[in-house]
Amino acid sequence: MTALDVNSAELEAEIRAMGVLARHAADVLAHADPARKTDALRRAAAEVRGARAELLAANAEDVAEAEQSALSHALLDRLRLSEGAIEAMAAGLEAVAALPDPIGTELARWSRPNGLDIARVRIPLGVIGIIYESRPNVTADAGGLCLRAGNAVILRGGSESLRSSRVIEACLRAGIAAAGLPEAAVQLVPTRNRAAVALMLRMADLIDVIVPRGGRSLIERVQRESRIPVIAHLEGLCHTYVDRGADLEQARRIVLNAKMRRTGVCGATETLLVDRAVAATHLPPILADLHAAGCEIRGDAETQALDPLASAATDEDWTTEYLDAILAVRVVDGVEAAIDHINRYGSHHTDAILTDDERSAAPFLERVESAIVLHNASTQFADGGEFGMGAEIGISTGRLPPRGPVGAEQLTSYKYVVRGNGQTRP
Amino acid sequence: MTALDVNSAELEAEIRAMGVLARHAADVLAHADPARKTDALRRAAAEVRGARAELLAANAEDVAEAEQSALSHALLDRLRLSEGAIEAMAAGLEAVAALPDPIGTELARWSRPNGLDIARVRIPLGVIGIIYESRPNVTADAGGLCLRAGNAVILRGGSESLRSSRVIEACLRAGIAAAGLPEAAVQLVPTRNRAAVALMLRMADLIDVIVPRGGRSLIERVQRESRIPVIAHLEGLCHTYVDRGADLEQARRIVLNAKMRRTGVCGATETLLVDRAVAATHLPPILADLHAAGCEIRGDAETQALDPLASAATDEDWTTEYLDAILAVRVVDGVEAAIDHINRYGSHHTDAILTDDERSAAPFLERVESAIVLHNASTQFADGGEFGMGAEIGISTGRLPPRGPVGAEQLTSYKYVVRGNGQTRP
Repeated sequence: MTALDVNSAELEAEIRAMGVLARHAADVLAHADPARKTDALRRAAAEVRGARAELLAANAEDVAEAEQSALSHALLDRLRLSEGAIEAMAAGLEAVAALPDPIGTELARWSRPNGLDIARVRIPLGVIGIIYESRPNVTADAGGLCLRAGNAVILRGGSESLRSSRVIEACLRAGIAAAGLPEAAVQLVPTRNRAAVALMLRMADLIDVIVPRGGRSLIERVQRESRIPVIAHLEGLCHTYVDRGADLEQARRIVLNAKMRRTGVCGATETLLVDRAVAATHLPPILADLHAAGCEIRGDAETQALDPLASAATDEDWTTEYLDAILAVRVVDGVEAAIDHINRYGSHHTDAILTDDERSAAPFLERVESAIVLHNASTQFADGGEFGMGAEIGISTGRLPPRGPVGAEQLTSYKYVVRGNGQTRP
Repeated sequence: MTALDVNSAELEAEIRAMGVLARHAADVLAHADPARKTDALRRAAAEVRGARAELLAANAEDVAEAEQSALSHALLDRLRLSEGAIEAMAAGLEAVAALPDPIGTELARWSRPNGLDIARVRIPLGVIGIIYESRPNVTADAGGLCLRAGNAVILRGGSESLRSSRVIEACLRAGIAAAGLPEAAVQLVPTRNRAAVALMLRMADLIDVIVPRGGRSLIERVQRESRIPVIAHLEGLCHTYVDRGADLEQARRIVLNAKMRRTGVCGATETLLVDRAVAATHLPPILADLHAAGCEIRGDAETQALDPLASAATDEDWTTEYLDAILAVRVVDGVEAAIDHINRYGSHHTDAILTDDERSAAPFLERVESAIVLHNASTQFADGGEFGMGAEIGISTGRLPPRGPVGAEQLTSYKYVVRGNGQTRP
């Protein structure tokens, strides 16, 4: 491991040097043959499979160190790599290799009465800086998607996963170099020094877009400090609302899945809202399923009255992403109150309504302001793969595009190519 | 005129109050009947026509005051309103009224193997803050486009045009109120106090997007200070490159139009690049046309050798948006050198190549990184109206979408609406 835990001038020089290399790599990638990028991704997948033993060993060191510190169970779970997870990472790179290359595509084309021919053509974003937390597989997913979209990427992963991420970075770079592309297309910041993030956020001349993935404090820090446009991936404070029109058996299945399928993913439901009109009939069986699955319930007074096992929820529970087997539960006065709660406390990620009544579904789907709104389905579908995008970096929760799952296509921009034959403007 | 030139706590309270009103208006507009927005725009146009005398008087006061100060000829020209300009403003609002309403449109829709139905649906951006310089017609254009796209807007115009803009604001608000929509959909910051901009840039809870239109120092200040996503509209440092494959007669017509049709618009060419291979034959007639039209030429040594009237260009000329009858001219070593010059010194706005040789056109159109690249046409076509968008706020020069002309459609975002029938994720 290179030691960049040094004085700040040296750190700044090292980070800027990474930016210069990334900019050069982006210039090459922007015009690279799609087949070469595909080849690089396939070779990177093979490198990941070949490095399995090395990666497991590095990950074991990361996990051992994390266990010494006060890392939460959920974060430890995100950090740990199994043989299956490594194979999934390799398969993910192959899936990205198989995606259609998005660059150069004509998104629209039309002619003007004066004969000008106007095309909107997809181009890469350029150099992307990704700032994320503990999950090491993001290193492979993000690196692969950026490469498919012709972008160079500077990755700043979680400190806990640095050893694992460095092995993954080496695999990606080996694949890229073997395909004849500049290996600086993927660079991992090789230090745990937090000052590296501040330096990245000021390099507007060398980084085109910053993608932060994480909790509120990370996103807020990035939005406050960044001189570079940000595609924010905020935590998933997802809600499921059980409306008076909900089918009880369906609601039981969906709520259990939305909360408990995997509790550590951003699409996991963190707050359950239940229409007062059906609280007495629907809430007890739904909560019984959750208790049976080992989920802790924190409810408002009405929930507690219906569920003696529920502890009392505070206002903080409405804004907490547990990433754990804990659910906040609130009884609300119909769909309007549910919409208000979600728009006020949510993270604009993913929210679902369960109902067979279109009079409730329509306003919910229209007025909940989140990137993804679902009707009669589990919030755990918030995932680029489930949307058919092949893979994703995450779910963008900002107001500007790209919103929702960010895959290769969403990591692009466009320009206008206008062809004339001598036109002057009157 | 309300005097907000007061102490900073009072100013902050006033600006935040505008934000609160805008947020409420945006919530109403997001779900307003398209016909009502159309009605508001038509009524606003009628109000502008009805206020012609009042607007001319207010504008005369603005111009008189600006003449006292050191405002440049180009800026004075942008500030002055004629009867024709007022009619154009009203007609512009009617053109925006006639545009298809972009909100609620399904941008894409597909089904997944598990039966989930996924739609990407267009929604407004929310509350937009626009910070611009002297041109008062931006008040009408921006207000109209934001309304069409279902956004509320807070306008911070140039100090010089405050009287004119206030009359225009009143016309827009009267039209909006008469159509039964919240008049806070359009609000003009009623103070020349520059601290108002800093306050806007920090109101991330009340403003969703900032659109700065202006020179480098404004854009850089906004990008440095803003906690809110920015759609930057940088100055137009546009280039026309005359390649060895250019038809001389066509090049003469296009260059003259690109520079001199209107010198004060962002699409005016500011730097002419000429291929060394044809400099001796093409440059003298092109420059003779420009001299005859009253254009000053600032050239590099080779240009000066071919044109005794040219003064010497310095490095500063390559980065100056004259907005005046002045042209910087440089002889370059073919298309590769032209691309390098443009990517290094340009503002990523609009750049043209004049050539009949596809071997020059293809790399230019692919590798010049600007929002608009043109082949054999005048850079003055850089305009939303000329692109068929009906109207525009300006040309976005950032790397992320929206790039190029920003019309009503570009002032929107989207969300995913996913419809299921009980799906849980395996």
